[in-house]
Amino acid sequence: MVPQKAKDKKDSFRDVRRVKKEKKKWTEEKLLKVRNVGYTSPNCSDNEAESETPELCTLSIAVPGSILENAQSPELRTYLAGQIARAACVFKIDEIVVFDDLGSKNIADSSIQDNDNEGRIVRHCCVQLARILQYLECPQYLRKYFFPIHRDLQYAGLLNPLDAPHHLRQNDEFAFREGITTNLPTKAGRGSVVNCGLLKDIIVDKILTPGIRVTVKLLPRREGSKKIRGIIVSPSLPSAETGVYWGYTVRIAQSLGEVFSQAPYSGGYDLSIGTSERGDKIDDISQEGLQYNHAIIVFGGLEGLEAALDNDEILTADDPTLVFDHYLNTCPGQGSRTIRTEEAIFISLAGLRTKLIPKLNATVEK
Amino acid sequence: MVPQKAKDKKDSFRDVRRVKKEKKKWTEEKLLKVRNVGYTSPNCSDNEAESETPELCTLSIAVPGSILENAQSPELRTYLAGQIARAACVFKIDEIVVFDDLGSKNIADSSIQDNDNEGRIVRHCCVQLARILQYLECPQYLRKYFFPIHRDLQYAGLLNPLDAPHHLRQNDEFAFREGITTNLPTKAGRGSVVNCGLLKDIIVDKILTPGIRVTVKLLPRREGSKKIRGIIVSPSLPSAETGVYWGYTVRIAQSLGEVFSQAPYSGGYDLSIGTSERGDKIDDISQEGLQYNHAIIVFGGLEGLEAALDNDEILTADDPTLVFDHYLNTCPGQGSRTIRTEEAIFISLAGLRTKLIPKLNATVEK
Ligand SMILES: C[S@@+](CC[C@H](N)C(=O)[O-])C[C@H]1O[C@@H](n2cnc3c(N)ncnc32)[C@H](O)[C@@H]1O
Ligand SMILES: C[S@@+](CC[C@H](N)C(=O)[O-])C[C@H]1O[C@@H](n2cnc3c(N)ncnc32)[C@H](O)[C@@H]1O
Repeated sequence: MVPQKAKDKKDSFRDVRRVKKEKKKWTEEKLLKVRNVGYTSPNCSDNEAESETPELCTLSIAVPGSILENAQSPELRTYLAGQIARAACVFKIDEIVVFDDLGSKNIADSSIQDNDNEGRIVRHCCVQLARILQYLECPQYLRKYFFPIHRDLQYAGLLNPLDAPHHLRQNDEFAFREGITTNLPTKAGRGSVVNCGLLKDIIVDKILTPGIRVTVKLLPRREGSKKIRGIIVSPSLPSAETGVYWGYTVRIAQSLGEVFSQAPYSGGYDLSIGTSERGDKIDDISQEGLQYNHAIIVFGGLEGLEAALDNDEILTADDPTLVFDHYLNTCPGQGSRTIRTEEAIFISLAGLRTKLIPKLNATVEK
Repeated sequence: MVPQKAKDKKDSFRDVRRVKKEKKKWTEEKLLKVRNVGYTSPNCSDNEAESETPELCTLSIAVPGSILENAQSPELRTYLAGQIARAACVFKIDEIVVFDDLGSKNIADSSIQDNDNEGRIVRHCCVQLARILQYLECPQYLRKYFFPIHRDLQYAGLLNPLDAPHHLRQNDEFAFREGITTNLPTKAGRGSVVNCGLLKDIIVDKILTPGIRVTVKLLPRREGSKKIRGIIVSPSLPSAETGVYWGYTVRIAQSLGEVFSQAPYSGGYDLSIGTSERGDKIDDISQEGLQYNHAIIVFGGLEGLEAALDNDEILTADDPTLVFDHYLNTCPGQGSRTIRTEEAIFISLAGLRTKLIPKLNATVEK
């Protein structure tokens, strides 16, 4: 039997450890949450992370995973996913929602099923689109850690790079970097060692589980010191502090309804735009006429948003104009009978660029 | 020896035949000119055709053939060409100029050489891009006649259809149709028989060489008649009369300079726009601020229009802003370090849609 004192000590030690462990877990979750890695996990309880950094205005797009099914070859399927990622990067999209617009159609067919991070059964095309989007968003020097060989990424070599500002080369100098926590031993009083794609690893202010993706703010080098030090920050800080685009997050929604109900922002989206050739003319919206804190622009698949709504088992509306704040034709007078989803994304975001205006954006004030 | 009278008669007969033949040749050239088929032939003496139909305002784009060289596989090379064709169709482009932006670079290397319709030595990537663009513009039911099997079209099966209004199905009813003249015997006093993708061929008002592409205006069926009759019209008439987009023409320019000097419109282009991330902000151009009779929007390749200008052996300017009426950044604040040419086409045409306005357009008056 253990004497009481020793037991007390042990208990209190245990408590401290537990608290420490929970705090660590909390920090890690917070970090992972915002920039979910691997493929995708919808997560809405982002409040803690947000309270730390200025709440930025965000722009999201939602795209049906089913568009991959219309590609003519596995290479083109991959390429199509790459086009979505490119469009998101060009137009500084903060979040891409991959949604299932087919409802329960064929979902019993195991060949189209897959699992997401949360163990939900999800249509494989959605998982693949989400995976490729995340792969492309991840800086090249981190991909080998987060994206093991996978058949969904078989043709990833054909993908055009995002050329995003947070995809820094070894020699690029910038105040922020994305990194992966290593399992290198940390000295007492020091935080974890993080690989940020530099020649030397960075010592950060927190002790974190090895193998997670983090955003690091590099501290000015102390005179004479060979070590580079940094602090762990929220992934939205680089953009808030410098105005530079810092990539997008990805989540899967199992229906059009989940696009909205699982919004990761407190209060959800305050501006939603559906797109369709049957929508109202974009030209009738004035410059800076669409103000938002958290906006989302939703695109349909082969059969448009009407079909996505029909296939949604919870939303009861049968007219998409009722589901969105605006339902817009972003290419009035189109010469082709149909515009493809990947084309509509470029066209719509180009057309909306001067009409969408963030209500409050930390970078605007700089 | 032939008696004088008989000789005179024979001569005059010969004359009539010659005149007829020349007239026929002229008509055919006129028809071919505007909608050059096969792959491509630059042709500027379009005046005769124009005098017959209302002079419409036109919108052209110029794209370097070299962009195909950056594709990662033969399939993607083809797909890229298809994206250009799709963009042109969505935005109702009248003419696509495929230009060589590399100058004499490696041109001695026979593996990159090809010949165009006029026997000029042209970079193969330019010929292939032009060929795929023409293939896609051609209504499906005519392709087998105008596009024999060719390695440049090996992956054409992967291409997304243009879904253009002049790509009519057998059952579609429309006042105009594209067709091919057949070698079916024509009765005295009647014109050629034209295959327009209908169940029945059409008898037109002119006798034309078999195997050429023509635009036919269908005449109302006479009561009780089983025959469908039509008249041969200029390819610009359907659009002038109905406002419907009727496809694009394609030509190859061997340099940036030839894009302008070989313009097929009398007086050339009266509005030229170069595109670059280093251009002036598109946002500073007001709505309907760009008026034109014949406008052209020029895109650069991997190294931009600066390089295309450097590689031009005739144009002496060393600053592209001197070559264009406007040099525009059509995506201010881009999130990616570079925008690809095929993306820039969608973005630029979407951004310019409400700024570009035809000065005089027959369809506008309708
Ligand atoms: C192939 S289209 C859908 C066509 C479908 N037959 C329909 O009628 O909606 C795929 C998606 O592209 C977008 N899209 C196509 N044309 C558009 C336009 N003119 N304006 C806005 N979005 C468009 C929409 O998001 C649409 O759901
Ligand atoms: C890959 S970019 C050329 C990049 C090249 N390094 C440069 O600096 O010009 C290919 C083409 O896309 C078009 N483009 C790219 N970004 C653009 C922008 N922001 N505005 C207008 N056109 C752009 C231009 O026509 C350009 O020549």
